[in-house]
Amino acid sequence: MEKRNLETCFSPALYEADLHLNSIVVIIDILRATSAICTAFANGAASIIPVEGVEEAREYKRRGYLVAAERDGYILDFADFGNSPFNFTREKVEGKTIVYSTTNGTGIINLAYSAEKIVIGSFLNISALVRWLKSQDKDVILFCAGWKNRFNLEDTVCAGAFAEQLLASDLYSTICDSTHAALDLWKVAKNDLPGYIEKSAQRTRLRNKGLDDCIGFCLTPDLTEKIPVIKNGILVDNNL
Amino acid sequence: MEKRNLETCFSPALYEADLHLNSIVVIIDILRATSAICTAFANGAASIIPVEGVEEAREYKRRGYLVAAERDGYILDFADFGNSPFNFTREKVEGKTIVYSTTNGTGIINLAYSAEKIVIGSFLNISALVRWLKSQDKDVILFCAGWKNRFNLEDTVCAGAFAEQLLASDLYSTICDSTHAALDLWKVAKNDLPGYIEKSAQRTRLRNKGLDDCIGFCLTPDLTEKIPVIKNGILVDNNL
Repeated sequence: MEKRNLETCFSPALYEADLHLNSIVVIIDILRATSAICTAFANGAASIIPVEGVEEAREYKRRGYLVAAERDGYILDFADFGNSPFNFTREKVEGKTIVYSTTNGTGIINLAYSAEKIVIGSFLNISALVRWLKSQDKDVILFCAGWKNRFNLEDTVCAGAFAEQLLASDLYSTICDSTHAALDLWKVAKNDLPGYIEKSAQRTRLRNKGLDDCIGFCLTPDLTEKIPVIKNGILVDNNL
Repeated sequence: MEKRNLETCFSPALYEADLHLNSIVVIIDILRATSAICTAFANGAASIIPVEGVEEAREYKRRGYLVAAERDGYILDFADFGNSPFNFTREKVEGKTIVYSTTNGTGIINLAYSAEKIVIGSFLNISALVRWLKSQDKDVILFCAGWKNRFNLEDTVCAGAFAEQLLASDLYSTICDSTHAALDLWKVAKNDLPGYIEKSAQRTRLRNKGLDDCIGFCLTPDLTEKIPVIKNGILVDNNL
């Protein structure tokens, strides 16, 4: 049996859309976007509309939507809350459609749009997502969001954790240097993940803004079985 | 004393020229371009003219230059030899100016042209180059050539080896996730570097073309004290 191909991409600037038309893309942006999205679905959100611009988010707010919106870590004045996973509580999001303002995330979704399917990955849903990927007979590309097109450590070690579980299944093989690197970095990091993430630049950025309270939470595996998936540009629960 | 900044770039597609105007750029493309260039100077080459196009290389050949030229690992019919470091013997190159055809390398040199200085790094000249970098009061960016804009393992672990030596000096600090990753991968790789490089995609590409005889050589530290540097678009010995 021919094995499925597993690849990893470290930055939107490195994504080669034409190579992944038939692949499932796993978007990984654990501090904090994809962790927040997984949390929202874990707490019963009906759907999430990712929007790029501040004005677009403001217009949705005028029309009565719940809006999560930040720029550089600060909540926009018209928004209901910011992008920390702690904001997406059951009280606030259950049954709701949430508008999520994210310049980086919207760009990535557009880049990956030609792929077979786009799903949202984080430590919070890793085992459930791996089980689902294994049930699909498709190549997989782990797409690290990075930061302003740069490589980042936290998304890379999370990609390595996904790669470890997928490759252990024997359904996948890889000849991708980025996957090998992510896997090796995950093996270095996994025995003390919070300690390892201490040296990441995003750890320092969040600390400097007082936004680092959620980091331990974002590094916790398997808090939810939910698999957010893009359908018609909107994030919904894959099981619905 | 303020420390100098050390950064690493994993691909030409990730290089941010504006951030490195005052930095020394170390170009790393160990399988095989920067290893071949270091070998040429070790064997007494006077200078190397990097050219982009095949026709440009052919024109230099007509004018009597020694030309090293490959495409996808195969020697071009008009060239004197290919891009393996083993071709740059003292008999062939001593005192000579060599034209070196490299699409990837020329692109990288153009990208980095606005920087303070561009030097050529490999395992072959690592300690000499580190000593020289330490003698310069400048930030350093380790620029991995990658392969067709992709991340690669071999240049990354070499960047990690440079980072280890530079950071050990206490003259440099880094808040660059790519540098941390390169350093951690180097620590994984260094006890069995040839074994580690076995899994790199370039290792397989070179083996498939029968061009892998030089890999052990390219992974050997400190075979030369030479530091090739770009001056007016030409590679020359930094000590001259």
